[in-house]
Amino acid sequence: MKKPLAVLLAVFLSATAGIASAQVKPEDAIAYRQGAYKVIGWNFGPMAAMVQGRIPYDKDGFAKRAANVAAVAPLTIEGFGPGTDTGAPTRAKPEIWTKSADFKAKMDKMVEETGKLAAVSKTGSFDDIKKQFGATGASCKACHDDYQAKEKK
Amino acid sequence: MKKPLAVLLAVFLSATAGIASAQVKPEDAIAYRQGAYKVIGWNFGPMAAMVQGRIPYDKDGFAKRAANVAAVAPLTIEGFGPGTDTGAPTRAKPEIWTKSADFKAKMDKMVEETGKLAAVSKTGSFDDIKKQFGATGASCKACHDDYQAKEKK
Repeated sequence: MKKPLAVLLAVFLSATAGIASAQVKPEDAIAYRQGAYKVIGWNFGPMAAMVQGRIPYDKDGFAKRAANVAAVAPLTIEGFGPGTDTGAPTRAKPEIWTKSADFKAKMDKMVEETGKLAAVSKTGSFDDIKKQFGATGASCKACHDDYQAKEKK
Repeated sequence: MKKPLAVLLAVFLSATAGIASAQVKPEDAIAYRQGAYKVIGWNFGPMAAMVQGRIPYDKDGFAKRAANVAAVAPLTIEGFGPGTDTGAPTRAKPEIWTKSADFKAKMDKMVEETGKLAAVSKTGSFDDIKKQFGATGASCKACHDDYQAKEKK
């Protein structure tokens, strides 16, 4: 580590350009939140498949997926800052910013349910896990119903 | 929660389509890993800005960013499965799959360094944190140098 600053500059120049000045580019925020949801969806998929019996239930694998989702879920809200309603193709509805208290409440609920899922998936019965998975999915759906358009615009 | 399976199907159908059958679509894996790196980059940005003195050092904020990065860093490797070298625009070089042991070693190193950064950022001096941030950035760069093309193909 002889030249840490040079290394950092080389590696993170583009990543830091917007954030450092507190002037986040809308397209970066949109890419960030879409990225976070990709990670969540990727990890949710196998859990859903286990719950639905399409692949065998694997307790450790399920718990790991649930922990991953619980780790990333709280990060999503930061991608919905002011002025990020447009700037790149997005399914985010304008109501996210006009009904922000309700949006925030639904996001908080989702984070809470993902945390519960991570907890129960470590120690609970598969029946309990399935029940909490349903509650978690419902908390996702509640937000999608109100704040996610069918198509990107 | 009257219809958990229906809810789940509605919410996660597209997310689970590929993974459940263990036939992951290359484009989904590429979107997943790119999403994970977006989350990492977003969180790395403010840390770099603090280390470089472009924004004020905020201990709790830095520690939170470091924890976020440490949580997501171990998830990236899963996006580089066999057959995901093409399928969507990607900067991943073919050497990832032909020199997979070295790639894996560099990824493991990166995960290790992000874990150390999360740890030191909670309790260490800013000097120690800066040193570990440099080591972490170097571990990112080591992989980028060998396995990341300048442009997507």
